[in-house]
Amino acid sequence: MAPMERLLVIGGDAAGMSAASQARRRRPPEELEIVAFERGNFTSFSACGIPYYVSEIVEDLDELVVRTPEEFKAKQSIDARVRHEVTSIDTSKGAIEVLDEDGGSTSWESYDQLLIGTGATPIRPKLDGVDAERIFGVQVLDDGAAIDALLDSEKLETAVVVGGGYIGLEMAEAFVRRGMKVAVVDQAPEPMTTLDPDMGALVGEAMRAMDIELYTGEAISGFETTDGKVSAVVTRERSLPAQIVILGLGARPNSALAEEAGIEIGPTGGIKVDRRMHTTTEGVWAAGDCAEKFHLVGRHPVAIALGTHANKEGRIAGINIGGGYATFPGVLGTAVSKICDVEVARTGLKTAEAESLGFEIESVVVDSTTRAGYFPHAAPIKTKLIVERMSGRLLGAQIVGKAGAAKRIDTLATALWNEMTVEEMLNMDLSYAPPFSPVWDPVLAAARAAVSKIESSRR
Amino acid sequence: MAPMERLLVIGGDAAGMSAASQARRRRPPEELEIVAFERGNFTSFSACGIPYYVSEIVEDLDELVVRTPEEFKAKQSIDARVRHEVTSIDTSKGAIEVLDEDGGSTSWESYDQLLIGTGATPIRPKLDGVDAERIFGVQVLDDGAAIDALLDSEKLETAVVVGGGYIGLEMAEAFVRRGMKVAVVDQAPEPMTTLDPDMGALVGEAMRAMDIELYTGEAISGFETTDGKVSAVVTRERSLPAQIVILGLGARPNSALAEEAGIEIGPTGGIKVDRRMHTTTEGVWAAGDCAEKFHLVGRHPVAIALGTHANKEGRIAGINIGGGYATFPGVLGTAVSKICDVEVARTGLKTAEAESLGFEIESVVVDSTTRAGYFPHAAPIKTKLIVERMSGRLLGAQIVGKAGAAKRIDTLATALWNEMTVEEMLNMDLSYAPPFSPVWDPVLAAARAAVSKIESSRR
Repeated sequence: MAPMERLLVIGGDAAGMSAASQARRRRPPEELEIVAFERGNFTSFSACGIPYYVSEIVEDLDELVVRTPEEFKAKQSIDARVRHEVTSIDTSKGAIEVLDEDGGSTSWESYDQLLIGTGATPIRPKLDGVDAERIFGVQVLDDGAAIDALLDSEKLETAVVVGGGYIGLEMAEAFVRRGMKVAVVDQAPEPMTTLDPDMGALVGEAMRAMDIELYTGEAISGFETTDGKVSAVVTRERSLPAQIVILGLGARPNSALAEEAGIEIGPTGGIKVDRRMHTTTEGVWAAGDCAEKFHLVGRHPVAIALGTHANKEGRIAGINIGGGYATFPGVLGTAVSKICDVEVARTGLKTAEAESLGFEIESVVVDSTTRAGYFPHAAPIKTKLIVERMSGRLLGAQIVGKAGAAKRIDTLATALWNEMTVEEMLNMDLSYAPPFSPVWDPVLAAARAAVSKIESSRR
Repeated sequence: MAPMERLLVIGGDAAGMSAASQARRRRPPEELEIVAFERGNFTSFSACGIPYYVSEIVEDLDELVVRTPEEFKAKQSIDARVRHEVTSIDTSKGAIEVLDEDGGSTSWESYDQLLIGTGATPIRPKLDGVDAERIFGVQVLDDGAAIDALLDSEKLETAVVVGGGYIGLEMAEAFVRRGMKVAVVDQAPEPMTTLDPDMGALVGEAMRAMDIELYTGEAISGFETTDGKVSAVVTRERSLPAQIVILGLGARPNSALAEEAGIEIGPTGGIKVDRRMHTTTEGVWAAGDCAEKFHLVGRHPVAIALGTHANKEGRIAGINIGGGYATFPGVLGTAVSKICDVEVARTGLKTAEAESLGFEIESVVVDSTTRAGYFPHAAPIKTKLIVERMSGRLLGAQIVGKAGAAKRIDTLATALWNEMTVEEMLNMDLSYAPPFSPVWDPVLAAARAAVSKIESSRR
């Protein structure tokens, strides 16, 4: 029998617990002890579900928990300790310092393998009043619990979301559903800057249609406070009353702990990892939002905080920790969201990204419907393709549409993953029946339009 | 200027008119005269929409017509003549014989290029009574018009569908929606034999839940008639009252005209074409249901009658006729349908097909949900993958689920098109957000299960 080893996991969410689970599948408790430390109150939760908990679409916070510490213990012999914060890593000794938040005591725990899954931290602008109460990031389940508790205990009327990205807009919608007056402030000319501005503008229209006030092209200059609580968001142009504020400015890899321990950090601020999710420090692995990712189209490192990557990377790390072999190829930057009644999705490079990387591109925006045009509930779908002009290779895609539109991004992501050209895509055998698509599915119609455009641009 | 040429098109539906349109885009009326002959009353129609017209989901038959002869004339200078049946092709003279159904006169029309788009013919079993009135195939819009007119004029109470394929089941549902008592008889052990039996059984359950009587494993032996009209469908086991019968036994390429003219027919009964959709006879092209297709996974010729192929092949033929260059790579056998509240989709090879081609396979069936499990309207989805054991290469996929399930087949079809392995698929960057999928999208969850299964089968 192999000598007993010890795997410690920092962070009890998707990346850490996926890694722990995979390691356990390959190595039984007699071979590998696994202890995970989570500074919050929950393990393995769906942070992406928070807006739907706040909007009361999801009733019980527990529904967002995939597996509790008790379940990890009983089913997998994994010791997951919530309310335990890791405060230091000593890679030379192979040990981490752990603070028991309830007892207040600190102890050192030694490891043979260490998995860092510390996630990401919402970006907080260094502005007056930013540390006031009721200014929330939305990153962990405890944030969702705190926001919901506040809304339940007090009748708040005004909310401001700073930043027009996915989480910010989802939260804006949640507040609308709770009957509040909501404003969104974004520095960019259009919301959802992961899209091209022409596609982002469609999202803005949908927000305004739902009575969300949208102020674009406005940078915030600070927060007004009353009794230590936020009362307004201030821009150069106006002061917006705000009894609660959501910071939707994105998140940075939470890599401080690793950096302090001398573990190499990449240019995006994420922990540098190889394809097996191993860091540059022996025996130390990283996965999820805190780990740097490779963009398969742009061929550059990126920081993307997303549960689906965290799950996959955790799985890869866990297989390798467990003595198996697996590699993570990288990401495309695929994302999807529902804002009010509009579905939004994107993958690959947007126009500005493609151009800054030196690609000469053509793009098309094609209007179609989610079902055959004559079929009930056929909904509009606008598909944008960004294509390298000479090769015809797909570089990126964006979709904005109504119910049934967005998931088509997966077909485009799969085409992108395989470096397909629009000419190849055009002939793909995608499914057709009137309840599901026009005879030229929007994906094929977009590819067809791109082929025509490239052809005429070459003449 | 090039000398004036003449393109004749036989069949005014998707294949023929797509070809005509593409040819016109590349060659103006001064260069190319285009005349299309259609023996029915409609051009460019959605035959796939017929069940929804019969069920009254689609109210007006005209909604199923994409473009009328008048529109072809006005917008594209294409002379589309309905109620004109082509009765003979003389390839040595470069002419076709055309019967004007209204005048009854016959004339010969000469061509420089000929496009055959004669579609498919529903299979009619050679059984007693099969030629009785009220036994319908569902192939062209005139069939839909006739069925609907019958239901409107008489209060029919019983319908029997012979054959449990897509069109048959869609028609069964349509009759249920019209308040009729419906039975489906299928020789196979489960309906929907394009799926594996375990997946087909799920379709059977959905049908029974909608009060469709389903008799599987029963071959029909004939039809009872009264006054020349069908009155019952007879099997060895029973006689099923039937005031109307739908033949849902599939369709054969309608290649008789081509065959009589000495144009080469392939082993499936479809007209043999090269990658540009040219037949083996100079100047003669074929596209759509009447043309043989190449199956990209099985690498064998197939006959598949489907509008999406007809449109693409017509486009390819038209580009080539117009002096351009384009090729059609082949098909995967992708198909999708909605039967009652169940969505059904498939692509690639089913188990029996893969095995008969010599593949050693593993398969997995994975239960998941269309949205995050905690999200409202999360619906069940069952995904089956058929995978080559040694290589891990995807060979086929099948989906049965509720609203939002089936279109995921496009992602699987794109993976199949690119000859991906399940190991590669597992890490693909597909979109995730709670309203759209669990954190492991059903496609990825299925790939993950397949990877595990293959891994353990190799031990």
